Amino acid sequence: MIQVGIIGAGRIGQVHLRGIASGVPNACIRSLADPTISPQAEQLARSLGVQHIMPDYHDIIDDPKIDAIILCSPTDLHAKISIEAIRAGKHVFCEKPVDHELSKIALVETALKNAGRNLKYQVGFNRRYDHNFLALRKAVLEGKIGDVQFIRVSSRDPQVPHAGFVKSSGGLFLDMMIHDLDMIRYLSGSEVVEVYAQGAVLIDPAIGEAGDVDTATVSARMENGALALIDNSRQAVYGYDQRAEVFGSKGCVQNANDLPSTMVVSTVEGIVAEKPLWFFLERYMDSYRAEVRAFIDSIENDTEPEVGIADGRRTIQIALACKKSLDENRPVRIDEIPIH
Amino acid sequence: MIQVGIIGAGRIGQVHLRGIASGVPNACIRSLADPTISPQAEQLARSLGVQHIMPDYHDIIDDPKIDAIILCSPTDLHAKISIEAIRAGKHVFCEKPVDHELSKIALVETALKNAGRNLKYQVGFNRRYDHNFLALRKAVLEGKIGDVQFIRVSSRDPQVPHAGFVKSSGGLFLDMMIHDLDMIRYLSGSEVVEVYAQGAVLIDPAIGEAGDVDTATVSARMENGALALIDNSRQAVYGYDQRAEVFGSKGCVQNANDLPSTMVVSTVEGIVAEKPLWFFLERYMDSYRAEVRAFIDSIENDTEPEVGIADGRRTIQIALACKKSLDENRPVRIDEIPIH
Amino acid sequence: MIQVGIIGAGRIGQVHLRGIASGVPNACIRSLADPTISPQAEQLARSLGVQHIMPDYHDIIDDPKIDAIILCSPTDLHAKISIEAIRAGKHVFCEKPVDHELSKIALVETALKNAGRNLKYQVGFNRRYDHNFLALRKAVLEGKIGDVQFIRVSSRDPQVPHAGFVKSSGGLFLDMMIHDLDMIRYLSGSEVVEVYAQGAVLIDPAIGEAGDVDTATVSARMENGALALIDNSRQAVYGYDQRAEVFGSKGCVQNANDLPSTMVVSTVEGIVAEKPLWFFLERYMDSYRAEVRAFIDSIENDTEPEVGIADGRRTIQIALACKKSLDENRPVRIDEIPIH
Amino acid sequence: MIQVGIIGAGRIGQVHLRGIASGVPNACIRSLADPTISPQAEQLARSLGVQHIMPDYHDIIDDPKIDAIILCSPTDLHAKISIEAIRAGKHVFCEKPVDHELSKIALVETALKNAGRNLKYQVGFNRRYDHNFLALRKAVLEGKIGDVQFIRVSSRDPQVPHAGFVKSSGGLFLDMMIHDLDMIRYLSGSEVVEVYAQGAVLIDPAIGEAGDVDTATVSARMENGALALIDNSRQAVYGYDQRAEVFGSKGCVQNANDLPSTMVVSTVEGIVAEKPLWFFLERYMDSYRAEVRAFIDSIENDTEPEVGIADGRRTIQIALACKKSLDENRPVRIDEIPIH
Repeated sequence: MIQVGIIGAGRIGQVHLRGIASGVPNACIRSLADPTISPQAEQLARSLGVQHIMPDYHDIIDDPKIDAIILCSPTDLHAKISIEAIRAGKHVFCEKPVDHELSKIALVETALKNAGRNLKYQVGFNRRYDHNFLALRKAVLEGKIGDVQFIRVSSRDPQVPHAGFVKSSGGLFLDMMIHDLDMIRYLSGSEVVEVYAQGAVLIDPAIGEAGDVDTATVSARMENGALALIDNSRQAVYGYDQRAEVFGSKGCVQNANDLPSTMVVSTVEGIVAEKPLWFFLERYMDSYRAEVRAFIDSIENDTEPEVGIADGRRTIQIALACKKSLDENRPVRIDEIPIH
Repeated sequence: MIQVGIIGAGRIGQVHLRGIASGVPNACIRSLADPTISPQAEQLARSLGVQHIMPDYHDIIDDPKIDAIILCSPTDLHAKISIEAIRAGKHVFCEKPVDHELSKIALVETALKNAGRNLKYQVGFNRRYDHNFLALRKAVLEGKIGDVQFIRVSSRDPQVPHAGFVKSSGGLFLDMMIHDLDMIRYLSGSEVVEVYAQGAVLIDPAIGEAGDVDTATVSARMENGALALIDNSRQAVYGYDQRAEVFGSKGCVQNANDLPSTMVVSTVEGIVAEKPLWFFLERYMDSYRAEVRAFIDSIENDTEPEVGIADGRRTIQIALACKKSLDENRPVRIDEIPIH
Repeated sequence: MIQVGIIGAGRIGQVHLRGIASGVPNACIRSLADPTISPQAEQLARSLGVQHIMPDYHDIIDDPKIDAIILCSPTDLHAKISIEAIRAGKHVFCEKPVDHELSKIALVETALKNAGRNLKYQVGFNRRYDHNFLALRKAVLEGKIGDVQFIRVSSRDPQVPHAGFVKSSGGLFLDMMIHDLDMIRYLSGSEVVEVYAQGAVLIDPAIGEAGDVDTATVSARMENGALALIDNSRQAVYGYDQRAEVFGSKGCVQNANDLPSTMVVSTVEGIVAEKPLWFFLERYMDSYRAEVRAFIDSIENDTEPEVGIADGRRTIQIALACKKSLDENRPVRIDEIPIH
Repeated sequence: MIQVGIIGAGRIGQVHLRGIASGVPNACIRSLADPTISPQAEQLARSLGVQHIMPDYHDIIDDPKIDAIILCSPTDLHAKISIEAIRAGKHVFCEKPVDHELSKIALVETALKNAGRNLKYQVGFNRRYDHNFLALRKAVLEGKIGDVQFIRVSSRDPQVPHAGFVKSSGGLFLDMMIHDLDMIRYLSGSEVVEVYAQGAVLIDPAIGEAGDVDTATVSARMENGALALIDNSRQAVYGYDQRAEVFGSKGCVQNANDLPSTMVVSTVEGIVAEKPLWFFLERYMDSYRAEVRAFIDSIENDTEPEVGIADGRRTIQIALACKKSLDENRPVRIDEIPIH
């Protein structure tokens, strides 16, 4: 039984609380730390049998009985706490992104290299564990579509965020498209070499005033020669739209949105299916559980986490290249973005 | 917090253990009784914090702290334990069927009538709580398809059962089609008046030797005038096939199978989607949780359970009418089957 | 080049005019006969190069240059003209039904038997030539689903007909379901042995007053042991609904409706596909062409038409058994209906 | 009745022969000219009642009875014959592309401007008349998706062409993607301002040796602010893949491939639908007929053809900008490509 401490009891912290309690049989949540825990989160933790609830995360890091930390703090503390946890010999699952600054991620990488034993560090790219994307990846790995030649990811949020969030989150490329940038790496099994980004403010002028775009596309070239296209929108009024397609020498795989039910209603109005699940937590709930399960398994079996610190760093680097491409209206090679 | 005791720790008992622990927030499993509990079931119960595990279900019935019983014993004990529990003042959720004999169900009904206070009794027709069937029912209730004129249910198991099971289970109509008979009542909001059944042994001769059929259809007439058709097969090699359609004056609703993912693979072989989920526990897991949640809510809110003893009795009555129709090759009115 | 004469220039006669002109390369329409031809039909025929247009069909039957007759007269003349044409040595394609009375069909069969040479006689069950139904049949023949165990046909008209039409057409079973009765024979490759019909007047009371039903189901047993279910409605408000499913030991094939386009519209209202094609002539246009092409080919190659007089007779016999079943509320064996 | 002369009796000439004969009621094919007509094409023309078949197209241009010309000659004669026909006062339907060189297209435009009366000139972008693309366009025009923000077109051929064809055809951008470049203009109702192209040789090295790519993507910016993405492949082994999606402020429309039938086969192998139609002539047959019907109607009603010489010129200009972008690996504004 791996003893787990969760740091951060906000929305995503609670997701992991529930997920681990109900779906990770070889993990036990020993502690939860949050300086400003809500009564609701505290009640949830208690009902799930969490014994120690404390304001200060250092109490988790200092607890010798804790094997692993699930890091759900605000983003700007990810790197700092990661390093402290690593130095304390804890395995770390860190919500994405590790940090918006590559230099800070480099510090985490250094800490990991210096750790005396083989600590596991996993970054929370949960979509890799979603059934619809996992199925594509598996089909590619099994050779069902031969050599990958083209990847497409469409990712559209149901509702435009507050302009304030846009600012703090790092903007569309770092906050939203980062999942898709990781996805084209994951689906192709190859690295992004160069990107060209286009962006526009077509939905909410406040986003433009905040210095960001609400609609964007990226054209990418992969190391193995494949081409990739990504399209993002901050507002698909019909719901959370999450689709991908991988095309290769022997065929093509694509997925579609998850729907609340398979019902189809036929009337004089048309043949109507249900809209996609609206909220990302609802849509991806199973994947949050699955990624932590994989993390705990990697500790138990002493294997490398599938998505480690290098993935976390690389994806930020690509997102920054996209930003630069948009700013300068030219293709940008990823290695133009220094990692330190 | 409703205190719950589970009687029976077999396959379906374990389903409810897991379901209540992870998805029924206002219920707490206090006890589990099974005379021959498996080590696996015991471990599961302990990991979910069940305090009392005992061989004799009477210890649950006699426990004044227990509010409600989840009855997952073998079918032939359902009526007996139901009556004992009712007499002890417990609310009862009874797995379907209450019994294969209408006279025994009548005894449970009598016990309920004689109970000193408003006890809740729910029968486990879980499919009413499945997202795909619930969606159809909701659409009908909202008037989306107008007056119901026709209902169709297709229900096919992935694998033929042992002939031994066939015998003990009461046969195709009582064991398998019973869900579909309840479904046409549920979807139409009306009662079955008359049925005509056809059956054949097309899959496994051993089923025929056991006196049952492995393929069957039923043509039914509903009280509101609607017509219904059901088709059953004991073996759909492509997986568990569970579909329904309701047609009315303003349109039609239908559902399709749940799939493991939305992936579609396009190759020289064709355009291939995933097969339906194979196993009924996997397919209907959420519905088992949802039906118990509804049961617990009906206790808390003192409302009638949506599917009560009368539904349990009526559905058996229809199934027996189907058997009689098959035996005599003629349409049989449901009121030809005496309920005592 | 087979020289063809068309008798009857009404709606279906014009369909065959167009179909042969544009899609049956080895046939040439030499003549068209109709005692009350419309100006529109006459213009169509002229624009397609038909040389002889005459009121009296005998001029076609007596024309030695005519090889084959496409018989699109009113139903009550089908048998009479068929016999005259056969006696004149013409191949005959006869629109369905040959007649509503089995004794009249028997006279045509006798005429065919007495014909001096191998005349071709095809009955217009066009749906056998429709791409969606042909695909099912082909899959069954190729063994893709193993032994056929169950067949389902759903057939629903978009609009309720005038009660007057209902009377003259012979009613739902003879006019509408006859296609589906032929379809279960076609898809199963087996004969119907027994039927049980249910019917109701749920849409238009005038149909009930005319002595017919507007909603009906049939449960059938096939010679090879398979079971079949048919459902019919005179009014599906969302459009012409034409679907079938064949289930067997190795799998299942089903088809769906043809749509005007593959477009799907996603809005706050839902995910909306197009409604099925509304009108049977539009929906089945290609099949009308294909069936005549097959007829002409059977003449050229001296092969048996796939759907001959025996099919025309058998299907009427089954429809009459359905009517009897509905009248007497009992299963009726097809051989209870005398063919003379 | 518009009298039509067809110049060129190759594959596409025969398509228009058949299409006009069977589906353009207000046009009559008077003449067909081809210096090297095949016996098969000649027989087809005769069977469809074409009176004049001649080697020299000048006989068509000089025929005062001819109103309109369907120009299906080799591409390098399009501009020359167009100008001669215009000078002779004929309406012209010209197969795409008008020419690969913008300067030659400019000569046609000048001829049109100088023509004494309002001659119609239509360019053969047939996909605008295809039911699946027309449906998208109509939905956009009806405001169903609000303001267009993003357009995506996926277009993949079933089989890689000979490298020789690649050379003569002008390469992927001018020969294949040109349809998609026109499509994003058509679907958005806006002009392309700037493009960025990526390309690769992933399928057939011979194509690379011929100086072309077999896989390409284009990222485009439209005048109205919308972004567009196109992906092309010379070889989708599962068949001709033709899809598009338009996303806007109120929703999204997308289409899917046309299939030979709606059949779905469910077996242990999976749930298998049919592969897309393989061949572009089969897939787009109806659109070839529809575009000529629209051309003839524009003559009869004296309206502007929907897709005129300016569209033919603009699309070539964009394709040349794509080529330049690929060569120089930078975004290229369309107005960087001189039109004279």
